[in-house]
Parts: sequence; structure tokens; C-alpha cells
Amino acid sequence: MSTADIKQQRRKRFEEVFNRIRDELIEHMKGEKMPREAIEWYHRNLDFNVPGGKLNRGMSVVDSVEILRGRRLLDDEYFKAALLGWCIELLQAFFLVSDDIMDQSITRRGQPCWYRVEGVGEIAINDSFMLEGAIYHLLKKYFRSEPCYVHLLELFHDTTYQTEMGQLVDLITAPEGQVDLAKFSIEKHAFIVQYKTAYYSFYLSVALAMRVCGVPESYTLNGDTIEPYKVALSILLPLGEYFQIQDDFLDYAGTPEQIGKIGTDIVDNKCSWCVNIALSVATPAQRKILDENYGQKDAAKEAAVKALYEELGLREKYKAYEESAKGRIEKLIQQIPEPEAGVDGGVLRREVFTSFLNKIYKRTK
Amino acid sequence: MSTADIKQQRRKRFEEVFNRIRDELIEHMKGEKMPREAIEWYHRNLDFNVPGGKLNRGMSVVDSVEILRGRRLLDDEYFKAALLGWCIELLQAFFLVSDDIMDQSITRRGQPCWYRVEGVGEIAINDSFMLEGAIYHLLKKYFRSEPCYVHLLELFHDTTYQTEMGQLVDLITAPEGQVDLAKFSIEKHAFIVQYKTAYYSFYLSVALAMRVCGVPESYTLNGDTIEPYKVALSILLPLGEYFQIQDDFLDYAGTPEQIGKIGTDIVDNKCSWCVNIALSVATPAQRKILDENYGQKDAAKEAAVKALYEELGLREKYKAYEESAKGRIEKLIQQIPEPEAGVDGGVLRREVFTSFLNKIYKRTK
Repeated sequence: MSTADIKQQRRKRFEEVFNRIRDELIEHMKGEKMPREAIEWYHRNLDFNVPGGKLNRGMSVVDSVEILRGRRLLDDEYFKAALLGWCIELLQAFFLVSDDIMDQSITRRGQPCWYRVEGVGEIAINDSFMLEGAIYHLLKKYFRSEPCYVHLLELFHDTTYQTEMGQLVDLITAPEGQVDLAKFSIEKHAFIVQYKTAYYSFYLSVALAMRVCGVPESYTLNGDTIEPYKVALSILLPLGEYFQIQDDFLDYAGTPEQIGKIGTDIVDNKCSWCVNIALSVATPAQRKILDENYGQKDAAKEAAVKALYEELGLREKYKAYEESAKGRIEKLIQQIPEPEAGVDGGVLRREVFTSFLNKIYKRTK
Repeated sequence: MSTADIKQQRRKRFEEVFNRIRDELIEHMKGEKMPREAIEWYHRNLDFNVPGGKLNRGMSVVDSVEILRGRRLLDDEYFKAALLGWCIELLQAFFLVSDDIMDQSITRRGQPCWYRVEGVGEIAINDSFMLEGAIYHLLKKYFRSEPCYVHLLELFHDTTYQTEMGQLVDLITAPEGQVDLAKFSIEKHAFIVQYKTAYYSFYLSVALAMRVCGVPESYTLNGDTIEPYKVALSILLPLGEYFQIQDDFLDYAGTPEQIGKIGTDIVDNKCSWCVNIALSVATPAQRKILDENYGQKDAAKEAAVKALYEELGLREKYKAYEESAKGRIEKLIQQIPEPEAGVDGGVLRREVFTSFLNKIYKRTK
């Protein structure tokens, strides 16, 4: 089988778990005697908003559990890892459905945003809540009697709150239509990226995998005392930052063929890495160009900002950032003490992180 | 001291706990290095949306803990009970802030709805999430090492999901401006009331109090085996239904002096007990009056509906419902086996429920 076939098969197996989960969530509603129209509504909410993304976050729980266990998973182990993956996808769906309302977005994943579907409207707010609510229903159903249960709950609580904090800072720093570049800074960008993206897109999946594999708060290996969750955080937050900066850069420099969409960060007044770097090195005259042209729905103004980015050498700055970030992250990974072969679960392994890094490095979409 | 003075002092003590909680939530944000404007924003969100209600739900946690313990509380016991009370108020604030957006309401508690405050708008959606997020931050901070912790978490999860289920049914059954009385029924009304109101307004406070007092899943008293959480549910769901039906009735029959507002259920197309009872007994001619006049912003049409309610004898039907509900609930309460005097915590007491019932029976606001 080709690598592409294997990849597709992995995805298919993961997607089949969603069908089971969705059916169980619907069965639960029937058991609660919810009226038929409401059950059908929730069914449509789940199908429309949860699958259909790239599923990287969800599937990386399965990947991480496999690496930590160092072997193929039993069917029940696979199901539970995939279930946690779908809980991340539910969390993401909760954020995306509500973000789209707040940003007044038009489309998402090649279809209209849920709130723009005929007859949905503001009900989408409550629908987003129910996607979040499903997470805790599923965790209770499948993990209640396991020692990791309370840790899984806390990981979801903490990450949700952090993501909301990042979203708040993003919303008040870069409101569409009210451009004030004085509100931007590299520090705010770093806060937004870490809180709004890195915790839930990178740390959460690995930490969940570590918890189901029974990785303890701390352990000693080859004479070193390791606090594995702190280690994971110290690697995955920079990795998440690298990923988001890459995303910001590709929005500006990627071709539509590469990234599968047309970048709109400049016209949308986004607090992107690009504009923050430009602001940090701009002369007063260049700053004036940014003030006059950023965040406006006007192709000529967008072109003026892009020309300035070229003039400021943003491509080279990105190249330098990417190499340096990659180097820093690799060094951190190399510092993790590795166990002897054959240890099943229980300790951290470098491959958890290298597999992430390899997926991200020099990606063009 | 007069009863009114004592009541006011109890409220004041409870409110002081909010100030401490709010300050701690803000301190936590500072510790996370959140930008200043965002910290100020969250501070304003908390102050604007959390206190200022009647606080019945929150304060009843304190009342219930006192009754279950059978004595005055130590300072730390008081604080923790009040903290759980404020977590219910946070949950309620999460619902109200978002409901107001979904219902496009104008005012709440004598001030504009949060989303209508200058500069807030759709950011209110994320603000509502952060009110919910605060609950789990506080529970983790104060209850993490206690045996009841996981039960407290599950109570909040379950109740949140149930309330969202009730809200969904309400939203799709009674959309404003699209009147279709065929969607209404006594059964749907019962579902909405139980899920949208009774769980979080009645069961949650008592069950939280029982958990902090260490009331177990089941126990034996005077030879009877009791499942106290099931008993509490079997009393508090009917009590919550009674409360909401009273609310629906007062919206129609209460004078503005009594209820402190002008009832709008008829013009707002609400799935109220009143219209459901009317529908259940209406002749085809009377049904026609309802179809033609319900749910429209027109004073003459509202008056036509009210006249029909009088004709159908809704006041008498309510009176009969109230007496029967009260009788049924009293009987359930009397069936609870009571412990000997001097037992501290650990078992259910009738007074938990009678104190609720007495607050509700024949209230006019």
C-alpha cells in the first residue's frame, strides 16, 4: 500500500468512530425524551460542524498514544484514543461555530458557516454550546471509572478557558473595521497565538494521550527527574507558535494553489505575525503606509501593504525565524531522556514531538 | 433585628464573597500575563453580568448546607458554600448573556443587555464562554483535593448540557415572529421547563450542597434504604415545574406592581403554560382566536388572547394546579425518613425542601 493509501485508511478508521459517537449522542437525547425535531436538529448540528476538517488535532491523539505505547493499539485502546481525538474536534467545532458568528464569516470548510444556514441564525450560539457539552457527556460515559478521568476533565477545562482568553485578546486587539495598529505588538501576537491556538491545537492532544497512557506527573529515568507535562508544554507551545507564524506567513506569501484559499489577513485587520514584524522595523514613513492601507477592503491598499512587506524583507525574516525555531525545538526534543526499548506507556518519547515537527516543517499548506 | 434586616445581612455577606472571587479571577489573568485592556474587559464582564440578580439560586446553596449540617457554618465552610453558589450565578450569567443575544432582548435586570453595551456587540458571545470557564477554574482552585470534586464537576457538566437541551427545544418550538401553535404542547412545555429551568435553578443548588456535606449515593435510615440524589430530583423537578408555571401564570395575571415588569409572553410567542392549557381545551372557534392573535406585537390582539384566557377559566385552572402541585410535593417531602437530632451532614433533611416550597407557594413576584 502507498503512503497516501495508508494515510487515507487511517483517516477512514478515525472517521468511523465519529459515526458511532454521533449515534450515541443522538441515542442519549432519545433516552431523555427530547422532542423529535430537536433531536434531528442536534443530529444536523453534529454532522455539519464536527467532521469535515483536516482532523489533524483529533488524529494526533491516536498517533501520540501509539508512539507512547510503542505498539499497535488494541481495538478498545484505539476507540478510546479516537474518542478523545473527537472530543478535541468537538471543542474546535464549538470554537469555530461561535467564532464565525463573532467574525461574521461567510464560509467555512467549503460550505456556508452554520449560522448562515437557512433557519439557523442565532440558534447557532446554543448549538455551539451543545458541541462543548457533548465532550463532557462522552468523557463521563467512557472514562468515569478510570484514574485519568479527572485529569482529562481538567485538561479540557483549562484549555477551553485559555482558548477563550486568547480569543478575547484577539477580538479587542484587532476588531474588523476599526484599524488601530498602535494596539498591535509582538507580545500581544505571542499571547494570542499561545492562548488561542497552541494550547488546544498542540498541547491538548499530547497531554490527553499522556494521561490515558498513565504518564505520571514526574518520574526518574537514567538518573534524571522529569516532569513530563512541563516538558511537553515547553516544546508544544513553541511548536504551536511556529505553526501559527507559518500560517500567518503563508496567508501573505502562499499562492492560492499552495494554501487552497486566498489570504485575507491584510484586508481583515488581522493581528498577524507579518504586520507585527513590519511594525517593529518600519521607519515613520513606512509606518504611515501601514496606517493608511492596513485592514481595509481595497485591493490597491492591500497591494501597497504587500509591497512594503517585500521591501522590508519579510520573506528572509520568515526564513530566519523558521530555521531558528526549528533548531530551538529540535534541541529541546533532544534533551528528553529516552527509555530502553520495550517500555510500554508510562514515559515520554521524543518521537511524539518529532512526528509533529516533521508534519509542520516547510509545509506549504 | 427584623426579618428584613437579617435577610439583607445574609445577602450582603454573600455578595462580599463575589468581590473576593472576582478579584481572584482577575489576579489569575494578571498571572497569565494577559494584556491590560483584556483584563479590564473581563473585570467589567464579571461585574456587569454576575451580581445584580435576585441571587436565589446561589444563596440557596448556603441555606441548604446550613440545613444539612444542622448548625452555623465555620468561616471556611461558609466561603466554600457561597463559592458554589456563585458558580451557579456564573452559570446563570453564561446563559443570560447568550440568551439575550439569541432572543435579541433589550434590557436585563434594569440595565441594557451586555451585548447592547457600546463596543461589546458579538464579543459578548466569547464573554459568556468566559463566565462559564470561570466556574471550572474556581472549582479546581478550591475543591481539587476534596473527595466531592469530581461530583461537583459532573453536576455542573450535566446541568449545563440539560439546560442547553431545554434552550434548544424552546428556541425551535417558539421562534419569535414565526407563530405556529401546532408546535406547542403540554409535553413540550414540560420538557422545556424541566431542562431549561428546573435542573439548574432547583436541583443543582441542593445537589451541590449535598455533595459538599458528604451525602453518599445511598444510605439506610430507620430500616429504609434511601438514594438521596434520586429523592432530591424527584422533589425538585416538580418544584421547579411549579415555580415556572407560576412564573408563566404571573406573566399573564400578575399586575406590574406585583411582578415588577409588564408581561410579554403573549406578544413574544412564548411556549407558556397558559397558552398550552388554552390550546388543550379550546374549541375550534377558540383555537382560531389563538391562531390569529397569539405572538404578535399588537395590543388589541394581546387583549383578545387575554379575554379568551378569562373565558376559559385559566385563573381557576391555575389555582387548582397550584394546590395539587403543592399537595403532591408536600407528600413527597413527608416520605423522607428523618435522622435523629444531632446528626451532622451526611443525610437528607426535609427542611431543605420545605424551605424552598415556602419561598415559592403563593408568591406574587
